[in-house]
Amino acid sequence: MSNQSFNVAVVGATGAVGQQIVRLLEERDFPVNTLKLLSSARSAGKKVIFKGQEVTVEEATPDSFEGVHIALFSAGGDISKALAPHAVRHGAVCIDNTNAFRMDPNTPLVVPEVNSDRIADHNGIIANPNCSTIQMVAALKPLYDRYGIDRIIASTYQAVSGAGNQAIDELKRQSKSVLEGEEVNPDILPVGSLPVKHQIAFNAIPQIDKFQDNGYTLEEMKMVNETKKIMEDESIHVTTTCVRIPVVYGHSESVYVELKQDYDLDEVKALLQNAPGITLVDDPANQAYPLATDAAGKNDVFVGRLRRDLGHERGLNMWIVSDNLLKGAAWNAVQIAEIIAAKTPAIS
Amino acid sequence: MSNQSFNVAVVGATGAVGQQIVRLLEERDFPVNTLKLLSSARSAGKKVIFKGQEVTVEEATPDSFEGVHIALFSAGGDISKALAPHAVRHGAVCIDNTNAFRMDPNTPLVVPEVNSDRIADHNGIIANPNCSTIQMVAALKPLYDRYGIDRIIASTYQAVSGAGNQAIDELKRQSKSVLEGEEVNPDILPVGSLPVKHQIAFNAIPQIDKFQDNGYTLEEMKMVNETKKIMEDESIHVTTTCVRIPVVYGHSESVYVELKQDYDLDEVKALLQNAPGITLVDDPANQAYPLATDAAGKNDVFVGRLRRDLGHERGLNMWIVSDNLLKGAAWNAVQIAEIIAAKTPAIS
Repeated sequence: MSNQSFNVAVVGATGAVGQQIVRLLEERDFPVNTLKLLSSARSAGKKVIFKGQEVTVEEATPDSFEGVHIALFSAGGDISKALAPHAVRHGAVCIDNTNAFRMDPNTPLVVPEVNSDRIADHNGIIANPNCSTIQMVAALKPLYDRYGIDRIIASTYQAVSGAGNQAIDELKRQSKSVLEGEEVNPDILPVGSLPVKHQIAFNAIPQIDKFQDNGYTLEEMKMVNETKKIMEDESIHVTTTCVRIPVVYGHSESVYVELKQDYDLDEVKALLQNAPGITLVDDPANQAYPLATDAAGKNDVFVGRLRRDLGHERGLNMWIVSDNLLKGAAWNAVQIAEIIAAKTPAIS
Repeated sequence: MSNQSFNVAVVGATGAVGQQIVRLLEERDFPVNTLKLLSSARSAGKKVIFKGQEVTVEEATPDSFEGVHIALFSAGGDISKALAPHAVRHGAVCIDNTNAFRMDPNTPLVVPEVNSDRIADHNGIIANPNCSTIQMVAALKPLYDRYGIDRIIASTYQAVSGAGNQAIDELKRQSKSVLEGEEVNPDILPVGSLPVKHQIAFNAIPQIDKFQDNGYTLEEMKMVNETKKIMEDESIHVTTTCVRIPVVYGHSESVYVELKQDYDLDEVKALLQNAPGITLVDDPANQAYPLATDAAGKNDVFVGRLRRDLGHERGLNMWIVSDNLLKGAAWNAVQIAEIIAAKTPAIS
């Protein structure tokens, strides 16, 4: 890493992901010169501690980015669309956690373990993929490189923190109500901006984000389209079913993958064991497999339950778990920031 | 139905399934002459109300079945193996909810909507399939009959009540502890008889029942093998991933099915709409799809999220939900008992 330091802005600093970004910048000792914490007008004025210093959150405006080198956005797609171009105009590199630019052909969509070489192609904005995509492609990349992939069929078990702090509060509030025999009044999930709400406590909701015309939800289509873009392979068939379950932190995924070549299961395990950012937890005899509660608070992607498909000789089943706020969002973004920082020539 | 009435025994009468069987016998006005409620020595002496009368639970022994016409077993595989042959010796027809006889070639494995004609083949015992199998085959049968099925890839979201009343208590106890910031001490799940326990509250555990040598759990292999037996088609490829989630009542399943012929999605919906025991809930525009909390307490299998696979022209994705204690166990068993009762000639 160069020995220079950076003026960093975090947009959405008080949100579930923004809080983790600030924590990681400190934990990783990222070379921060100045830290600007930005938010909506509603959260402006809040105080956040960074490296022992109190930082006051300011309202994000088009002029907030003067002098900023790196801006990390996680305040929703509309905010990114409105403000990222201004950050770019001010010379910042934006790392955007929202869906705003992911499928834009001029914006690289990056999971460092998969395609860090694409970072250099950016035109001011680098998109962070959707949480459910990141952990899946991180786990599949070593298999793609070795065997190729024909198709993927994934069913997800997604934590409420993916829908933000309000959804976390809702799950806790509803759980308490159910346990105490009180009425549950759903308010946020499945989609805050849609009229129908469903109970998430002690339930499984097969809707994350809005429905598209083809019967899939936007969350499902993100996994489909982003996987192809990140892998740079439009020929991979991807189908997903995205489900919200009463978990606070950590998305789990049941993934069937059909490889292009026959494979050896021990070799698959060795590939994953040696892959960057992957922790293999696969010991059925000792009932060891990835669990959301174990992955919470950790940066890695955890993979287990590896087994041959019973119907297709090139089919492989796996269970992939990761903290959706970390590798699924904040950690992936900070990883990208670290790569940018390391590659930035020292400025006099 | 013939106008005769039957001496009925319920083995495991105080368990999660047994309680529902007793409730359904009353609700359905099953023609009960005498009702014998049987259990382990531990639960013997408990009182249960049936049609306004108090019935004392007795310890199940080989001699408990004298004069019994129909015996419904749900007290675990070991009890069924030990006692069902004695019930048969006494002339009873046994409807067994456990795994003891399901794959026995001499024992029919019955989901009335799928293969009620097999009931007549029994040699004293009729097996009730596993909960996760029943709801899947009930939903797939109309499609199998119309198009044929090549393969099934299913991921489940299973309620803790499938592991009995103790698991329900554990989920509630753990949920309360987590909400209050207290330590969680897992005691029952994932498998009561195995040494390692995992937290189920706010978690997803990819293990139901014991691991087999092929890396699949017994629960997963039940779905694989039972589906082939019930459909009477060994050529169907079935792969499953069975996961316990923090839900009390109602299993949900994400099912990919590859049909043998191309299909019309509207026709699929019409087939399911008209199928016995199925309720179609599939209106994405109004955010309507099956939910465990809606299925709880109901006898039907609920199907929705029907959509074309994005990678395979004969692929179809669906979301199947049912109350695992009802259609998945007690109701399927009582349905079989009703068919037996209706076909039994009047005895003078």
